[in-house]
Amino acid sequence: MKPSIPKGTRDFSSTEVAKRNYIFSIIKQSFEHFGFQPIETPSFEKSETLMGKYGEEGDRLIFKILNSGDYLSKVNDDLYTAKDSQKMTAKISEKALRYDLTVPFARYVVQHQNDITFPFKRYQIQPVWRADRPQKGRFREFYQCDADVVGSTSLWQEVDFVQLYDTVFSALGLEGTTIKMNNRKILAGIAEVIGAKDKLIDFTVALDKLDKIGKDGVVKEMIAKGISETAIEKVAPLFDFSGSSADKLTSLEGMLADSEEGMAGVSELRFIVQAIEELGLTSAKLDVDVTLARGLNYYTGAIFEVAAPEQVKMGSIGGGGRYDDLTGIFGLKDVSGVGISFGLDRIYLVMEELGLFEQVALPKPKVVFLNFDETENIAKVKAIKTLRTAGINAELYPDTATSNKQQKKQWKYVTNRGIEFVVTEVREDKFTIKEMQGGEQKELTVNEIVNLIN
Amino acid sequence: MKPSIPKGTRDFSSTEVAKRNYIFSIIKQSFEHFGFQPIETPSFEKSETLMGKYGEEGDRLIFKILNSGDYLSKVNDDLYTAKDSQKMTAKISEKALRYDLTVPFARYVVQHQNDITFPFKRYQIQPVWRADRPQKGRFREFYQCDADVVGSTSLWQEVDFVQLYDTVFSALGLEGTTIKMNNRKILAGIAEVIGAKDKLIDFTVALDKLDKIGKDGVVKEMIAKGISETAIEKVAPLFDFSGSSADKLTSLEGMLADSEEGMAGVSELRFIVQAIEELGLTSAKLDVDVTLARGLNYYTGAIFEVAAPEQVKMGSIGGGGRYDDLTGIFGLKDVSGVGISFGLDRIYLVMEELGLFEQVALPKPKVVFLNFDETENIAKVKAIKTLRTAGINAELYPDTATSNKQQKKQWKYVTNRGIEFVVTEVREDKFTIKEMQGGEQKELTVNEIVNLIN
Repeated sequence: MKPSIPKGTRDFSSTEVAKRNYIFSIIKQSFEHFGFQPIETPSFEKSETLMGKYGEEGDRLIFKILNSGDYLSKVNDDLYTAKDSQKMTAKISEKALRYDLTVPFARYVVQHQNDITFPFKRYQIQPVWRADRPQKGRFREFYQCDADVVGSTSLWQEVDFVQLYDTVFSALGLEGTTIKMNNRKILAGIAEVIGAKDKLIDFTVALDKLDKIGKDGVVKEMIAKGISETAIEKVAPLFDFSGSSADKLTSLEGMLADSEEGMAGVSELRFIVQAIEELGLTSAKLDVDVTLARGLNYYTGAIFEVAAPEQVKMGSIGGGGRYDDLTGIFGLKDVSGVGISFGLDRIYLVMEELGLFEQVALPKPKVVFLNFDETENIAKVKAIKTLRTAGINAELYPDTATSNKQQKKQWKYVTNRGIEFVVTEVREDKFTIKEMQGGEQKELTVNEIVNLIN
Repeated sequence: MKPSIPKGTRDFSSTEVAKRNYIFSIIKQSFEHFGFQPIETPSFEKSETLMGKYGEEGDRLIFKILNSGDYLSKVNDDLYTAKDSQKMTAKISEKALRYDLTVPFARYVVQHQNDITFPFKRYQIQPVWRADRPQKGRFREFYQCDADVVGSTSLWQEVDFVQLYDTVFSALGLEGTTIKMNNRKILAGIAEVIGAKDKLIDFTVALDKLDKIGKDGVVKEMIAKGISETAIEKVAPLFDFSGSSADKLTSLEGMLADSEEGMAGVSELRFIVQAIEELGLTSAKLDVDVTLARGLNYYTGAIFEVAAPEQVKMGSIGGGGRYDDLTGIFGLKDVSGVGISFGLDRIYLVMEELGLFEQVALPKPKVVFLNFDETENIAKVKAIKTLRTAGINAELYPDTATSNKQQKKQWKYVTNRGIEFVVTEVREDKFTIKEMQGGEQKELTVNEIVNLIN
């Protein structure tokens, strides 16, 4: 029986690694252009660092690592007899795999606060693990690419993040993305105005269905959820919410005039929208979207989500927002954070669908020297050394062919790998080099080969 | 109480990440120049893939992942009552963290054998995890950087690997490394000649102490281990083993004349030594070392180990060898493999000690725009956009200073981060830019700033 890997995990072939690295390198370079600096944290953290930070569901989905040695000897008889998996876990496991990059980052900031210059702009590109049910586009091991700033409440950070999204997606050739933006304060303002702070989520969920079920359907659902008709009347403009972001903000201003918090949210979004209008975006579009309620549990200000270009069916390819008290969970109070994340796997799928990987150089030799005659090999290996020193990927087919069949195997090797140039034989200092695409063959010295290829 | 991380793991600051990435990038680039292609495998494998592959000690050091959900409900009463940690593990854990890159690679080759063109030259740079007792230079999470070829028995691969070591260490500026080389067949030959195949390890261990305890001490220890004096006499030249690799091989040839296997080993090493003499090395030295017994359990041909430059006290910074049946454990027989590994953490320590990281560019902004006047910010942010587009890392200090103290905080920020250029104010289209090192101040347009920096 062939071996296999755990469900929800993946092997990556060299082509896949090259394409993924292409995305990583563009994200990384953009992060650095924007002044972010990389950190890395361990793959596993102490359980106490992670548990209780992602809700009950999150706690269940965290992969726990079994203690080493005779771990059962440390479990007392009462607890053991109970045979309760959850209680047992706390006794036989004290480490767990990273579930996201945000909590480890918060832990990092608190732990190293004396070595950090604030505002601290960090990026982190590392895998995370979740014991989720695997499905299309959802894995148990996947990468997150996060950029966050802690220690600043300036809205210029939000402006920077909108530009950062635009920069990365433009550099990837992924044109036509929509950066949707909302603000928790606007949602809170709406809840205040309709007199139902506790029904904010119900309201947002219903509003989000506008496209599908129309205004009447949405109103019906809201009433069913216990929101009064007069309340709904107050925010009626939301049902015809269209036009430019500036238009939407003007409309919101009218609607939220009685809510101080709501007006603060509008003013924050207006600042960002105006700055971006002045600065311009290359390929993305910024759009105010009041139905956006992503991460409502922890975001306290701006909320971002990026939609893939319209021609591709795909969920969000990025998201983020501001959280006023990121590090409070670890005892460092009043440190505001704001950050965004890029969804590597979905970006990969979108780029594959749009054929945007064509320019990615695959990691394979540019030149392969065939090996038909052992006596030629030292000359060939010397030539290969020269090519590599000149930065050209080159190799000798390792085994010397001693039959026609073995020669064919070598030709098949270079064909299968899509090799561009193949050297067959060497006479004096001249190498016979064949361009595989056109089939053209030349006799060249090593230096001439370097010139031909560079 | 401040949060912390599990013992044996590390946080990496941006400076450390940059230095580590510098090493990774040189290794990666060299791997690709030599025709290797990257693959990646999941962080955790099915337990059955890993268990039993590294000996009893290895099994103990593998980190096991606890099953999700109510895992105890699947343990029957008899097994549960026994309270045996080892037996329990097999029932409540079915995944484990990667222990090295070799076994996952063997699994990959067997699983994807139909999609692979052989000989398959793969490299892999990923972290591994071991529940070892942490100590200086030994961690529970660390990176391995491996390059292997499967499906070829050609000695040109060994020649290539010696060159690869030399290429990487030369590119890193790490001059004076010694690539020590041995061959399992030579060790087997010695055992055969001294008539004690079962005493090979005792013999090698004793011989390895020659430097410390001298010839007499070594002979004494060998006799104590039950090796006869006449046997020792036969391999006496080993006690004065010096001179060039060629000299040593000639001496070995005399010694091992009666062992076919031993002679085969000598002939293999001679091939490699001669090829490398013809090709030359840039900064490393190749040295035959018959005491080298690394991985004697699995290597079947060449054995490599790289010693750091003599002025640095450090164990080996790389190692590898040939194993005739790499994929046999997963059912694919008769596939020879040969590979080498780079020890990232030790290379890092050596480079730090020798001051070789000076040329590494740290990921920080080249230019920071101070923020003393909100009305200037839109002009500054526009300028920053131009700089970033020109490939220059730049940022605006996010919060506007409203007091002297806050202005000082901004100056402290740029000083702490070692920023090279600081922009203070803007008048019309001219920016006041200060070169922090010399203190020189200029009034320049954005384009002039781009020219100044590039």
